[in-house]
Amino acid sequence: MTGTLYGIGLGPGDAELMTLKAARLISAAKVVAYPALAGGDSFARSIAVDLLGNDVREIRIDVPMKVARGPAQAAYDQASSEISAMLETGLDVVVLCEGDPFFYGSFMYIYARLKGQFKTEVVPGITAMTASAASLGLPLAARNEMLSVVQGPLPDDELRLKISAADSVVIMKVGRHLGRIRAVIEGLDLLKKAHYIERATLPNEQKMPLAKAPDPAPYFSMILITKEVDPWL
Amino acid sequence: MTGTLYGIGLGPGDAELMTLKAARLISAAKVVAYPALAGGDSFARSIAVDLLGNDVREIRIDVPMKVARGPAQAAYDQASSEISAMLETGLDVVVLCEGDPFFYGSFMYIYARLKGQFKTEVVPGITAMTASAASLGLPLAARNEMLSVVQGPLPDDELRLKISAADSVVIMKVGRHLGRIRAVIEGLDLLKKAHYIERATLPNEQKMPLAKAPDPAPYFSMILITKEVDPWL
Repeated sequence: MTGTLYGIGLGPGDAELMTLKAARLISAAKVVAYPALAGGDSFARSIAVDLLGNDVREIRIDVPMKVARGPAQAAYDQASSEISAMLETGLDVVVLCEGDPFFYGSFMYIYARLKGQFKTEVVPGITAMTASAASLGLPLAARNEMLSVVQGPLPDDELRLKISAADSVVIMKVGRHLGRIRAVIEGLDLLKKAHYIERATLPNEQKMPLAKAPDPAPYFSMILITKEVDPWL
Repeated sequence: MTGTLYGIGLGPGDAELMTLKAARLISAAKVVAYPALAGGDSFARSIAVDLLGNDVREIRIDVPMKVARGPAQAAYDQASSEISAMLETGLDVVVLCEGDPFFYGSFMYIYARLKGQFKTEVVPGITAMTASAASLGLPLAARNEMLSVVQGPLPDDELRLKISAADSVVIMKVGRHLGRIRAVIEGLDLLKKAHYIERATLPNEQKMPLAKAPDPAPYFSMILITKEVDPWL
């Protein structure tokens, strides 16, 4: 009997925003794996750390932060082979994942490599998107409105089209693109409807109108645009 | 001192997909409020029922299922006035909400009426969207892909445009629109990339390729389209 591969969403950062199921599986885990900045900290591990058992075995996935895909692919190849070896011995492996595993999450790279070979289960997590909306007090979308999730590194003309087409827009991976994204939003006359948040739900969370946001922004930052003024009544 | 108004996301249905924070606040609640089908059951209450204290006071919000907005607005007006009376006495009120309160959630109608008058806190929940992706084993989006959330009742031409523009599409409120939506998706030659799921994470969950889905579908159903074949490596 081989073990089961679990991909567990940890939510946006506040450990209390983990699900009951995630907490149960992490507490019982004999083997966990998690991504980490190569040579640096693991945000995923930091969210779950209080639940890890004393004798848990840890597989660290050192993910290089480079635009080229090759180095990251090699890191996931290596991690998958370590995880696979554990599963072969009959042990379950719990892969920790910030946010939700299948919503721009890192677990999908492990999943793509091992899904055919082992039993897998994915536990969804709170996305930074809805956690940010909650923290900002900003309803994202209602009724028949369209919500689009757009990535900040896209070129200006693509950003402009995608932001124009939706009723509400969530922009991820803002970071060093903030100034450029803000100019696009201002060009669309939507600056007054745009909010900025960084490190949502963590003790050092910052939130403000996009007009006042820092440039560049940190990696864990997001912009929310809601075009409807009061559609909630 | 007036009480605090809490809007609590319960997740998609499996009670274990509640967050630790939601479970803590619901267990401690003296007053809860929740939407219910007029004259029928409350799905929200059913998710949280095992955590409710014996002496908890319950405010039921009977929401008429009509296309016209007036009757639902009257129901939220009435509920807000009951909730407001509780908050005025200094008691906190916990409003239970399926999924996430600010992602097409019912709490925003109460929030819009009371946010200026009382301290409020929103606790995000697992959306049916990511829970469905987890259950289907279907990564939603990665890297710089765009994900759009689209509502099934929109007219065909709007559906067609919105589905065409995104890399991944989640279609909510499918229900009686299923046949029409499926024809639009087939017309775009995307039927092979479309999956159907109903009652995600509940014991009677059903999932299948969209090609085989029942028409009409039940209210709690969703279609996921992921155009990229293998973007995860």
